[in-house]
Amino acid sequence: MFLIHPQVEPWLVRTDAGVRVTLLTERSEGLTVMLRCEPDNEARFIDMKHTGREAELHRFEATLPWDSGNDPTVYCFKVIEHGKQHWLASDGQHHRVPHRDQMFRINRRDTPPLWVRDQVFYQVFPDRFCQGDPSLAVQTGEYTYGSGRMKVVAKQWGEPVSQETCASEFYGGDLIGVRRSLDYLQSELGITALYLNPIFVSGSNHKYDTEDYYNVDPHLGGNEALAALSADMKGRGMRLILDAVVNHTGTNHPWFNLHGRHDSQGAMQSPKSPWRDWYYFDEAGHYYGWNGHKSLPVLDFSAQGLRNAIYAGPDAVLRHWMREPYGIDGWRFDVIHMLGEGPGSNNNAHYVREFRKALREENPQAYVMGEHFNEATRWLQGDQEDGAMNYYGFAHPVREWLAGTDIAYHDARLDTEEFGAWLDSARGRIPYDNQLAQFNLLDSHDTARFFTLVGTDTEAMKLAVSLLFAYPGVPCIYYGDEIGLEGGQDPDCRRCFDWDRNHWNRELFDHYKALIALRKARPELRHGAYQTLLAAGDTYAFARYTKDSVSVFALNRGERPHAVRLPLWVLPLHKKRWRAPGGEPIANEPGWITTILPPRSHVILLGED
Amino acid sequence: MFLIHPQVEPWLVRTDAGVRVTLLTERSEGLTVMLRCEPDNEARFIDMKHTGREAELHRFEATLPWDSGNDPTVYCFKVIEHGKQHWLASDGQHHRVPHRDQMFRINRRDTPPLWVRDQVFYQVFPDRFCQGDPSLAVQTGEYTYGSGRMKVVAKQWGEPVSQETCASEFYGGDLIGVRRSLDYLQSELGITALYLNPIFVSGSNHKYDTEDYYNVDPHLGGNEALAALSADMKGRGMRLILDAVVNHTGTNHPWFNLHGRHDSQGAMQSPKSPWRDWYYFDEAGHYYGWNGHKSLPVLDFSAQGLRNAIYAGPDAVLRHWMREPYGIDGWRFDVIHMLGEGPGSNNNAHYVREFRKALREENPQAYVMGEHFNEATRWLQGDQEDGAMNYYGFAHPVREWLAGTDIAYHDARLDTEEFGAWLDSARGRIPYDNQLAQFNLLDSHDTARFFTLVGTDTEAMKLAVSLLFAYPGVPCIYYGDEIGLEGGQDPDCRRCFDWDRNHWNRELFDHYKALIALRKARPELRHGAYQTLLAAGDTYAFARYTKDSVSVFALNRGERPHAVRLPLWVLPLHKKRWRAPGGEPIANEPGWITTILPPRSHVILLGED
Repeated sequence: MFLIHPQVEPWLVRTDAGVRVTLLTERSEGLTVMLRCEPDNEARFIDMKHTGREAELHRFEATLPWDSGNDPTVYCFKVIEHGKQHWLASDGQHHRVPHRDQMFRINRRDTPPLWVRDQVFYQVFPDRFCQGDPSLAVQTGEYTYGSGRMKVVAKQWGEPVSQETCASEFYGGDLIGVRRSLDYLQSELGITALYLNPIFVSGSNHKYDTEDYYNVDPHLGGNEALAALSADMKGRGMRLILDAVVNHTGTNHPWFNLHGRHDSQGAMQSPKSPWRDWYYFDEAGHYYGWNGHKSLPVLDFSAQGLRNAIYAGPDAVLRHWMREPYGIDGWRFDVIHMLGEGPGSNNNAHYVREFRKALREENPQAYVMGEHFNEATRWLQGDQEDGAMNYYGFAHPVREWLAGTDIAYHDARLDTEEFGAWLDSARGRIPYDNQLAQFNLLDSHDTARFFTLVGTDTEAMKLAVSLLFAYPGVPCIYYGDEIGLEGGQDPDCRRCFDWDRNHWNRELFDHYKALIALRKARPELRHGAYQTLLAAGDTYAFARYTKDSVSVFALNRGERPHAVRLPLWVLPLHKKRWRAPGGEPIANEPGWITTILPPRSHVILLGED
Repeated sequence: MFLIHPQVEPWLVRTDAGVRVTLLTERSEGLTVMLRCEPDNEARFIDMKHTGREAELHRFEATLPWDSGNDPTVYCFKVIEHGKQHWLASDGQHHRVPHRDQMFRINRRDTPPLWVRDQVFYQVFPDRFCQGDPSLAVQTGEYTYGSGRMKVVAKQWGEPVSQETCASEFYGGDLIGVRRSLDYLQSELGITALYLNPIFVSGSNHKYDTEDYYNVDPHLGGNEALAALSADMKGRGMRLILDAVVNHTGTNHPWFNLHGRHDSQGAMQSPKSPWRDWYYFDEAGHYYGWNGHKSLPVLDFSAQGLRNAIYAGPDAVLRHWMREPYGIDGWRFDVIHMLGEGPGSNNNAHYVREFRKALREENPQAYVMGEHFNEATRWLQGDQEDGAMNYYGFAHPVREWLAGTDIAYHDARLDTEEFGAWLDSARGRIPYDNQLAQFNLLDSHDTARFFTLVGTDTEAMKLAVSLLFAYPGVPCIYYGDEIGLEGGQDPDCRRCFDWDRNHWNRELFDHYKALIALRKARPELRHGAYQTLLAAGDTYAFARYTKDSVSVFALNRGERPHAVRLPLWVLPLHKKRWRAPGGEPIANEPGWITTILPPRSHVILLGED
């Protein structure tokens, strides 16, 4: 008994009274069909009414009341056929009542800004993307950095990165360069939004050790360059988000001031410092560093002064940059799950909610996005973040399925069935509105590049890229991925962008461009429902669809060709013709479609009336 | 690759620094074995050290650090063998990282009182168990009850209950009768603790519509009878918990006073009532009744006065009865998940935590137990309830497996594999300390009796009873179940106890006595670990074990006999001999044991040195 509940209009319609929900079933005869909800945490069943057919399926409808005591409202479906129970939860079908965390969920109040789902993001690590003004560049020996007081090093563009000089070496990328690249990014590639790694004053190249939250590092062009970049992007209709590093500062921040002036009153200098309680010191007077790194003293949000400085005060850091002349569209919050009171994450949810509140006060359409290397379900229920860097629900399973390694770089041989189940259960645990605002990625400044993980196999990389652009959520390209830039683990993944087009992987670049164009052309890829069609052996297939449009992606990760026969009858859509833009031959019979997938390849099928 | 993590000493030892945890594996050669934890929500892997063998298994050990930012601390295990990943989570083995809600969990701070796990509870519905003083009994026509102002009816002991007179009919059971039955309960049956349905002043027989929180209903014997019962029970070393009905009151409570004196100032009489904001009235001046029942006006915990009256004030209701001369050992909280601010459950977790705090202030060993007809995972993470009426994690799956019906009385044909998975995943989602304080039951005043649901099949009932006494958590017998009392849905499940022993089901009664005695004799049944051994076809088998003792239960729910071969090698125990107290023949080979299960029967096996 096949059951499906598309979580988009017209199968799910919000009203003041509740949500009109649709369950589509394979059969209708002799069924008892119920919607199960939990108003005020008490189970309640609502009979669903058979209201007709949609394509091959039978339609049942009911109104889900909003839960007055909880947001999101959770629900699932119970179908009894000849004494056998079939339940549909967010992660698939079951024969018994699902756990609450498996249920469908929808928020009445807190939903993400709708603009997010329509973007194509591009992540820039500013020192490595593009140099606009060589006179700004850090000079060798200009200053010392870190506990070892290492002299900073200026390197030639494209020279290999070094593990030794690591955070102290500079290639001279800047925001002027980013601005100059906007034609490339927007007009040539199709990018609509940027996420910049940290840009505020700091002695390191990564700038996760902030020294001044109110000034863009002069080596990147200072505040003027950011204002100019922002103005240019707004003129182009592009969006910009910045990196909020508020779990810790650098040791050179005046609030802390480990190596500062001797007459300063930094927290490290004196227990009587006005900023002493902004950091966590234990009874022996030792401060805590993030993950044990003493260069990154942890901020303690039990201090009201800190709360005012970061989010609550009239010119708090998070508010400041959302205002003109910068007017950024949101923040990506670094290690947001780790911050809170004391040395760690005590009362974390409270502060994430407060951040959200502050951002939304400045801009009701602000994007609140968190960095989570692991499961972010708790932060994505609506009241905290709009979306997360989707390592857990996307990058990890794709990496295990296509690259055979997990996020800890341990061997992983993930079955395709497990791959499909992973995607389904990760996606299902958060409201679909939030899933559509998830920040999907293949890699970042913190991981080896995906192209390197698959041994620079362009075909495998293309499979991953297609998944990135077809998956629910907003895709983000880590700078250089589109040209086949390579790189192992941090810092090797932060190599300079290569502006010599002769070096580019044109096949990959063209694939990126094609998928970006396809995503823009097909609304179902941006806000359609998701349905797995096949997950077996080396082949995985799924559909994205709205009432009017549908795309099917069929992938083969294996070394041998596979014929796949896909059950299109499970979709509530009648499409008369199917077209493969790549020209692959397909066979169409009622309710099914068959195609051949060559080794490590995929076919995209577009349904047409 | 079989993996097991027993959640009891000596395989799990609490220290100030953390928890010493043991993983036992089928093999050890070529394995990478890691403990995964999430201090401050960040994933961390700790290498586990191979420290020897236990019986057929290999032992790996590591210390799990307490999570400073979260309680409980969560963890799981990751084992890599030839590139294939094996994960052990609380609900079993997986090939990919489990969700956080599937992880093992242990609390540093909030743990349940240890006395709970050693009890055998007995639930009494006071009007129906035993009459001690006929002069106290409600007389026909003595008063009217309910919105229909129905005259109350006195009925003969044992006369059928009636759907018409329902809450207005009385059989005359009282607390004097309960006290007189203590010899029967304690000495003959083996009961150690009582849970009484509501006893405070109310016009109904069920008394879930409280009229006076400070007085036991005079028809049940008044406060004196409770004090005498409590004193007698304390003298016998017995425990007592009462029913806290604080989500709503009756309409006759003076705070509300729907039918009260005309000069009163009840919330219903006047918007200016001092108690007006203790209840929820909407803008039109309409009050809310629990689940729509206007006879049960919902209390609104946003009122400080109400909070003082229920739990915060010096003589608050919840505190009052924990003090002498009553000194009860804890409360069972009626529909606790539904209470909170406004008309429903807003801010529910806060109030449950406040209740816990108040109870523990009165008695650090108080038992905080909640009524939840459905999944109670959220309330059982340590900071709220010690245990719940375990409908979801025990009564529901047992009912579906043995009686073929679910809690909503819908047909359910649950496969044994699903049954085992249900038990495992429900149990695993809460800390094992809390699981051992779960209030396990087969039925109650709110459900049809289990014996009736299985068509008065004594063999099937005996299977259920054995599960009740062998399962982790504290067992509770609903009065009369032990003699084979029948009853359909409420109110039929509230028939009078039958004191004529000629009517008793002696086979069932003897089975109850034997299982109670077995549970008392075998520490593994009260606080041992749990391991499923078999779940296939109609047969289910599991072990309860400590380092020194082990019991194995093998059940056959089917109509045909089954030979079962049980893998004892999965347990970290060497037992030389196995004994079936029932005398069933068993065959013992190294690591395995074989026995024949006749139709609808079970075998209990005890390991001996």
